[in-house]
Amino acid sequence: MNVVYTHIRRADPAVVNGLALYGVATVHEAQGRTGLLGPALRPIFPGARLAGPAVTVSLPPADNWMIHVAVEQCQAGDVLVVAPTSASDAGYFGELLAASLAARGVRGLIIDAGVRDVRDLTSMGFPVWSKAVHAQGTVKETLGSVNVPVVCAGGLVYPGDVVLADDDGVCIVPRREAAAVLKASEAREAREASTRERLQRGELGLDIYDMRAKLGERGLVYRPQPAAE
Amino acid sequence: MNVVYTHIRRADPAVVNGLALYGVATVHEAQGRTGLLGPALRPIFPGARLAGPAVTVSLPPADNWMIHVAVEQCQAGDVLVVAPTSASDAGYFGELLAASLAARGVRGLIIDAGVRDVRDLTSMGFPVWSKAVHAQGTVKETLGSVNVPVVCAGGLVYPGDVVLADDDGVCIVPRREAAAVLKASEAREAREASTRERLQRGELGLDIYDMRAKLGERGLVYRPQPAAE
Amino acid sequence: MNVVYTHIRRADPAVVNGLALYGVATVHEAQGRTGLLGPALRPIFPGARLAGPAVTVSLPPADNWMIHVAVEQCQAGDVLVVAPTSASDAGYFGELLAASLAARGVRGLIIDAGVRDVRDLTSMGFPVWSKAVHAQGTVKETLGSVNVPVVCAGGLVYPGDVVLADDDGVCIVPRREAAAVLKASEAREAREASTRERLQRGELGLDIYDMRAKLGERGLVYRPQPAAE
Amino acid sequence: MNVVYTHIRRADPAVVNGLALYGVATVHEAQGRTGLLGPALRPIFPGARLAGPAVTVSLPPADNWMIHVAVEQCQAGDVLVVAPTSASDAGYFGELLAASLAARGVRGLIIDAGVRDVRDLTSMGFPVWSKAVHAQGTVKETLGSVNVPVVCAGGLVYPGDVVLADDDGVCIVPRREAAAVLKASEAREAREASTRERLQRGELGLDIYDMRAKLGERGLVYRPQPAAE
Amino acid sequence: MNVVYTHIRRADPAVVNGLALYGVATVHEAQGRTGLLGPALRPIFPGARLAGPAVTVSLPPADNWMIHVAVEQCQAGDVLVVAPTSASDAGYFGELLAASLAARGVRGLIIDAGVRDVRDLTSMGFPVWSKAVHAQGTVKETLGSVNVPVVCAGGLVYPGDVVLADDDGVCIVPRREAAAVLKASEAREAREASTRERLQRGELGLDIYDMRAKLGERGLVYRPQPAAE
Amino acid sequence: MNVVYTHIRRADPAVVNGLALYGVATVHEAQGRTGLLGPALRPIFPGARLAGPAVTVSLPPADNWMIHVAVEQCQAGDVLVVAPTSASDAGYFGELLAASLAARGVRGLIIDAGVRDVRDLTSMGFPVWSKAVHAQGTVKETLGSVNVPVVCAGGLVYPGDVVLADDDGVCIVPRREAAAVLKASEAREAREASTRERLQRGELGLDIYDMRAKLGERGLVYRPQPAAE
Repeated sequence: MNVVYTHIRRADPAVVNGLALYGVATVHEAQGRTGLLGPALRPIFPGARLAGPAVTVSLPPADNWMIHVAVEQCQAGDVLVVAPTSASDAGYFGELLAASLAARGVRGLIIDAGVRDVRDLTSMGFPVWSKAVHAQGTVKETLGSVNVPVVCAGGLVYPGDVVLADDDGVCIVPRREAAAVLKASEAREAREASTRERLQRGELGLDIYDMRAKLGERGLVYRPQPAAE
Repeated sequence: MNVVYTHIRRADPAVVNGLALYGVATVHEAQGRTGLLGPALRPIFPGARLAGPAVTVSLPPADNWMIHVAVEQCQAGDVLVVAPTSASDAGYFGELLAASLAARGVRGLIIDAGVRDVRDLTSMGFPVWSKAVHAQGTVKETLGSVNVPVVCAGGLVYPGDVVLADDDGVCIVPRREAAAVLKASEAREAREASTRERLQRGELGLDIYDMRAKLGERGLVYRPQPAAE
Repeated sequence: MNVVYTHIRRADPAVVNGLALYGVATVHEAQGRTGLLGPALRPIFPGARLAGPAVTVSLPPADNWMIHVAVEQCQAGDVLVVAPTSASDAGYFGELLAASLAARGVRGLIIDAGVRDVRDLTSMGFPVWSKAVHAQGTVKETLGSVNVPVVCAGGLVYPGDVVLADDDGVCIVPRREAAAVLKASEAREAREASTRERLQRGELGLDIYDMRAKLGERGLVYRPQPAAE
Repeated sequence: MNVVYTHIRRADPAVVNGLALYGVATVHEAQGRTGLLGPALRPIFPGARLAGPAVTVSLPPADNWMIHVAVEQCQAGDVLVVAPTSASDAGYFGELLAASLAARGVRGLIIDAGVRDVRDLTSMGFPVWSKAVHAQGTVKETLGSVNVPVVCAGGLVYPGDVVLADDDGVCIVPRREAAAVLKASEAREAREASTRERLQRGELGLDIYDMRAKLGERGLVYRPQPAAE
Repeated sequence: MNVVYTHIRRADPAVVNGLALYGVATVHEAQGRTGLLGPALRPIFPGARLAGPAVTVSLPPADNWMIHVAVEQCQAGDVLVVAPTSASDAGYFGELLAASLAARGVRGLIIDAGVRDVRDLTSMGFPVWSKAVHAQGTVKETLGSVNVPVVCAGGLVYPGDVVLADDDGVCIVPRREAAAVLKASEAREAREASTRERLQRGELGLDIYDMRAKLGERGLVYRPQPAAE
Repeated sequence: MNVVYTHIRRADPAVVNGLALYGVATVHEAQGRTGLLGPALRPIFPGARLAGPAVTVSLPPADNWMIHVAVEQCQAGDVLVVAPTSASDAGYFGELLAASLAARGVRGLIIDAGVRDVRDLTSMGFPVWSKAVHAQGTVKETLGSVNVPVVCAGGLVYPGDVVLADDDGVCIVPRREAAAVLKASEAREAREASTRERLQRGELGLDIYDMRAKLGERGLVYRPQPAAE
């Protein structure tokens, strides 16, 4: 059955804004190395960055009808997450849909497929993470669903989950864990700040992380390079 | 037989210049969603854009001899389209060939293979769409043909066809259909301008395109998100 | 056996600095079209460029422990070259490791895997050529080796070899051949300067390289484009 | 947190055995075109076929420790489903693990990674669907989880779901929907039997499915091939 | 405009049957190394082999409606050639369509997309060359065209051209050149028979093809392997 | 410089024949998980298996001239290992070259490129591991080298090294380590025989390998599946 779920529960905006301060790599680590979508998703312009609750779309290959349906379900601050049911690199999304989403205050798009009009999207400052850039048009013939759980680029996304994206890719933080992950991210960042300073002064990770003993136990051997080669 | 066709018929320059005002996505739509080359072809620098009649080259893998032959067949405003007879990511093209083409007024290169010297090509402003960047040198040993029909990145290109390329990829407009496609592009752009304005004001595509009835007929259901989960 | 070779012999710094003046494409040609790593290695920001002797790391998939070990073996001017023993696109390397390497004067990283924190690496100006950008964290559980010969993106790298990298990719110059390759690069560049000037004036490569006779012998035919078609 | 869930609820064996009579394509259709894992998963020998409830494993790249843990959670009739947390083509599984699973009556393996010993697995008749065959060994250093939901080759699998696999790939039927999907599969198969007979007698799908009117409405035109061309 | 061309001109059956005696590699060579479709097309069972005139189908991604339309245009001995307008690995074709084609005497299918029911297709002996096996269902919503020129797996196919396929892949022989290519294939095969016999007796290709002088001119050097290394 | 090294030192035939008794997976493990070529190399028919010293060929993309040169350097029991200097999937090798190699007693071919005539090669029983099957012909224009070190599918091969290949892929054993690796393989196989028997009786790897304590230390938790979910 094809269904549009309305009135979804979204992650707490204060938590979303808190997570927005941290990068994808930090948050992914802070939640136990989970939540990353696959590296095939790349931003269409460098420096793109966003955070917001997910409105999810499951739709057929090369058919973008359900994106039009999903626009109505979006509110300011949301991020649209689109996943076809079988692989497609067609251009599901361009500047007209972006204009429509921008008018509603949507922060950007994550799509496991292609997009087009990237020059316009870039000049609008509308960030997109996609697996392809392709001008190929799509049809509007077959239903899908909005705000159901979707698998996007190998990762699982529920409606209302926090989507974080930057130059390193896309990370999903489950709605109910978002507050805890924010705390863990703050803690991780604090620890890293101190480590960063020591590394910049020239201390070695081998010493900071106290690795030498364990390396020795595992049998690592140091030898001068032999004369012959 | 290996042949160089000379004195090819080219698309009307006025039509080419008209098409140059529209993006690849618009023109591809305006000609009925045909003519796109595959999304593996990417520009070597962002913002690259061109339009011009094709001079086509069919050549062997990792052998760029025929590009040297093709230069002589190019005139000001042309676009070189190069397709190997079997897959190759070698670097067929670099700044010396670009200098030679630029001296003749050629507008850019489309190649279903690799290029090199991309820093130089970028500073020359010589646009290239290729499927790889690779410094691998090529030989000059085996003949191919110039100005024959070629299949480039999955699309068919005849000599004299209009090549349009921008950040979204590459679109081919058949020479004899170019005037009609220009008109259709103008019409499409006009329609989109009005739609864009309405979307920017916050109207929904669902209403502008009158989709709600058809969605209902197909059986789309709206429901509030269930409490559990 | 897992071993760290210390006190490696490095290419002569004067030769390294000489080679740094030439691009990857030129040097690859100058040494007989050898030494290129595969085109899957791309710079994380445009314009990145480096030259330096290799410190090599062979390590397990998704385990970056040996990079921490390798940092200690690096000295100012070196380039770290990292190759997993089976394919991985995990993010082995980020801004903390970059800070540590930068503190030692290391010039950059070549890695046949993924990296993360690319925004930070870019603002630090720390150049990386990688096959993926991926925030996926790695473990520190299994040994590898430092300063052994490695196959990186299909090319062979010995510790102390010269690594050259730019927008066109990565080229390895064997340590003992570096001086000769530098001479050959200088000679090639000189020849190309003269050719470039002639091409810019509009002379054809067909004439400059004297190709017409050989093309005729091989059977190339010139014909005006037929009327029908 | 890394956890092994024990005593999972499994799909009803009678329903599993009923579904086993139908192919992946039929069942995928019968449940509304959902549940397919990606086409990169291929059987290691032709004719392989299985059905059974899933025991799921989430584990690190190139580390098969958790498969050893999962064996203990398997009972007769189960199917092991293994998904790494980042991409790996290492050989996680070979004939020793297969011997252990076969001793417990496990029906086969689905793995979004590599396997090895395929000659032995084939002669044992132990079916495996994998994305690679690779002899590369793995380590046993890092924990994962057993019987958590996993994303495998782009599809979502819960412990206890029905796994169906044959030459066409792998389909997952959610545990609680399995009985309904079985009924729908029976109905679909019955309909297809009658259609098959008519097609074999030479009737056209255009007539059986009554497509001609709809084709005409959409504007399909029939014309004799033009003489020139 | 979407059109079905009827009453196409087909290659002469006697020529088709003549070409059927030779393999794809031989015929591809005999027509000057042209006509091959890309190596991503693989047979669904080993030993598959066919020859026949092409009925071509251009259709949308993940929509197989036009295959149903094309069936009616097929006659005994034909080969169906299907190419989506943008990339798709969905399963466009299964045993019901095969039953329908087999009832009309069609010899097999070439498709630049996915197929399903491969166990059934194999037991029917209905040969298919495809780029994927995938159970993913398709829709019947959007028109395409039948018997127009198509680009399939990077090669150009006109309706009525001869399609040859075997374990080595797929080769297209243009209808009007088929008789000449048959003669050239016979000649090539005859030459090869004599060469084969000499090679089996232990003569070297270096001598049979008289390569030694040319190798020497190009500068090939023979040396005993050095002692060190 | 292009060179053919003659009179290479080959691994001891007794050791080669000893290694031939073990599979690629066993030998790869026995030599410390080194020596595997990449999983893109697949056998052209199931059950193919070989062992022998390598005669290596480095050659240009889509140019098989040096294979003809290499045939003369082969003796009975050898395995030909072919690696292009840049990526190619052309069909470098077919039944004529196989007939020539078979006449000299060569055991098979490893090639990081394409082959053709696979039906003939299969009926001859001439085993080939390649990354593609493609009928695309190659030229004979450009020199390469024979019996130099080559990188093949990401692995390093010296002339005279032992090549082992089976359904799991290809493993290289360095000539001077071959005797030691044979001993280690025998030892590994013996250990595995005893483990296999215990697993077949139903003992768990968790107990045989004594993993439970280490799993507990690392923090693995066992829990019954929760009721809700």
